[in-house]
Amino acid sequence: MSKKEEKNKDIYEKLKKIGEIILQQVRKNQVPYLKVPARTTNNIVFDPKYLCYVLGDKTITRSAGNIRHVKPFAQLLKVASLCKELVKDGKRHITKRELYYISESWGSKLKFDEQPESDDIVEDIEALLGLPREDIHITPKPKGSIYGDITLRFKNPNGKYMKVNCLNTADGQSIGPRTCEAEFVDCKADKVIAIETDGMYNRLIEENAHEKFNAILINLGGQASRATRRIIKRLNEVLGLPVYIFTDGDPWGLHIAMVIMAGSAKSAHINKMLATPDAQWIGVTASDIVKYKLRSDKLKDVDFKRIKELKKDPRYKKDKRLQEELRKWEEIKKKAEQQALLKYGFRYVVDEYLPAKFKELKAPGFK
Amino acid sequence: MSKKEEKNKDIYEKLKKIGEIILQQVRKNQVPYLKVPARTTNNIVFDPKYLCYVLGDKTITRSAGNIRHVKPFAQLLKVASLCKELVKDGKRHITKRELYYISESWGSKLKFDEQPESDDIVEDIEALLGLPREDIHITPKPKGSIYGDITLRFKNPNGKYMKVNCLNTADGQSIGPRTCEAEFVDCKADKVIAIETDGMYNRLIEENAHEKFNAILINLGGQASRATRRIIKRLNEVLGLPVYIFTDGDPWGLHIAMVIMAGSAKSAHINKMLATPDAQWIGVTASDIVKYKLRSDKLKDVDFKRIKELKKDPRYKKDKRLQEELRKWEEIKKKAEQQALLKYGFRYVVDEYLPAKFKELKAPGFK
Repeated sequence: MSKKEEKNKDIYEKLKKIGEIILQQVRKNQVPYLKVPARTTNNIVFDPKYLCYVLGDKTITRSAGNIRHVKPFAQLLKVASLCKELVKDGKRHITKRELYYISESWGSKLKFDEQPESDDIVEDIEALLGLPREDIHITPKPKGSIYGDITLRFKNPNGKYMKVNCLNTADGQSIGPRTCEAEFVDCKADKVIAIETDGMYNRLIEENAHEKFNAILINLGGQASRATRRIIKRLNEVLGLPVYIFTDGDPWGLHIAMVIMAGSAKSAHINKMLATPDAQWIGVTASDIVKYKLRSDKLKDVDFKRIKELKKDPRYKKDKRLQEELRKWEEIKKKAEQQALLKYGFRYVVDEYLPAKFKELKAPGFK
Repeated sequence: MSKKEEKNKDIYEKLKKIGEIILQQVRKNQVPYLKVPARTTNNIVFDPKYLCYVLGDKTITRSAGNIRHVKPFAQLLKVASLCKELVKDGKRHITKRELYYISESWGSKLKFDEQPESDDIVEDIEALLGLPREDIHITPKPKGSIYGDITLRFKNPNGKYMKVNCLNTADGQSIGPRTCEAEFVDCKADKVIAIETDGMYNRLIEENAHEKFNAILINLGGQASRATRRIIKRLNEVLGLPVYIFTDGDPWGLHIAMVIMAGSAKSAHINKMLATPDAQWIGVTASDIVKYKLRSDKLKDVDFKRIKELKKDPRYKKDKRLQEELRKWEEIKKKAEQQALLKYGFRYVVDEYLPAKFKELKAPGFK
């Protein structure tokens, strides 16, 4: 049995357990109910150990005895049952939108009237299991791609296992449901570089950054999707690779890195499964804008407002370097994109900028 | 020499020619100038043969003798010269954003002040050469992916040629610069299905639609990018594969199909290189919404406005089926997403819906 199959069996049992709890209650003539971790603001707390938002101890009781709850309670069981089948079969992954439409076949009393209803129930199940919805085969929009000397093993829709080395793809392997959960069977790289923009990702591929830095390159395509955050975490946790995040030089770019490092308040119930606390932000930092004399734009009101918010955010509190960079932006009143490094030619980013930054961050091979 | 290298040599000569024209003028003591096809509204005409917008015969003269033109004239030559090097080297592709930043190194008199200036010059060169900018290695944002039994041959950044069969990728090959221009070395499929949403693309992969219909599946991810339109056109033109486009059931979905078939007014100067006039729209049609009793939403004012615009659009004028569907939407006042077919189960779209539609459209194997 592959690791993935073992894990699926485990999740299958967890989902089955939900049904068994209900069955026992019914047999005891109890009104069936489930205790679900509360995802309300007053139960989202900052965990100083994991440096991310997590849920507190409060729970909500979803009960068939409450007329307002009876429909969502039944819907939760239907969704859990559907996911149990998806996990057992192992072949299919559905989107949240598909789930909403599938409910149409459950009849007019059970079907979801609006998608926020089904989304809410998916989050309930995530919180119940302590697992992101990808694990119960409800997958997010694919976004981003991965390139470099790593071999992925995944199950094809026809049931056969396949291997792909990401170097043997023209523009990287897109991060869809099968890539997201693929096993890592061989990896020669010793670090991960996650890149905000498509343009810089392509630049690093074309300048052979993956060879020069012995790195896996990940294209975030802006804010990282959950699937991408998950694959980054697995590369860090399973293979022990340090992770470096290369973004535009503005508070929004920095926060793209922070969500990879510490998750978001919205995903408090599963942040521990998604966040990579020891990932490091390369830049472009506010200091880099000055040091490298980068072409820049003036910060706008909305940027200054964002900086103020981030300065107060608990995720930034402990990191003196990031606090200092936030302050520096306020001082220089400028932002720059990562492509601005192109003013020094195509090779500058791999020959000068990244080596200097890796030295600063004590990356493997640059200590 | 590979076909790609032959083509690059051809484009290199065309770019060199631009410089030679200027040189000759200077040697004759003429003030140098270039005649560029006009991309103004009054020069965009509808070509009833190609069923797409093209440019008329009007030209604009960019001259070094006009004080307002001298800077953009010199910039055009700088960009053409840069592209000549990119095409010669064959390894690098740049984004329009990168081009803007590269100009920083040309000095304060020549650098672009804003990106629209460099974008405009790129379009001038496209119009001059009659080629899309991908051919001069200025690539669009990667978007979409390709899956199925087709082998692509492409040049790796390290200069070596590689082959990848798109079936041997976990979630399809993402359509970036190298995929976009890859040679097709082997293809067992006999048709192309282009799909609007990520969700339905994944559904078709997981239900083995590529095997059942002997098809290449292309994920558009919404409105098709230029790179995706180009690869669709090449599959149609080079391999002779018929193309079917599967979208949501609303005027926006239909227009996604239309832009693949007939291009847009904005790309009139290169539509002949991007459009696939004999591609066919599968649906979801307005009639399908009724026939398959799909879960639907009410059309909004903005949808009705769009329908009115499309009814007048010359690209729709000749196609009675599309005109009838536009009228039908106005009648039923409803729209539906392609995922709405999930109400009949996971397999319905491949076992019932698509076979019925392929029969209607006389696809290979369904005649």
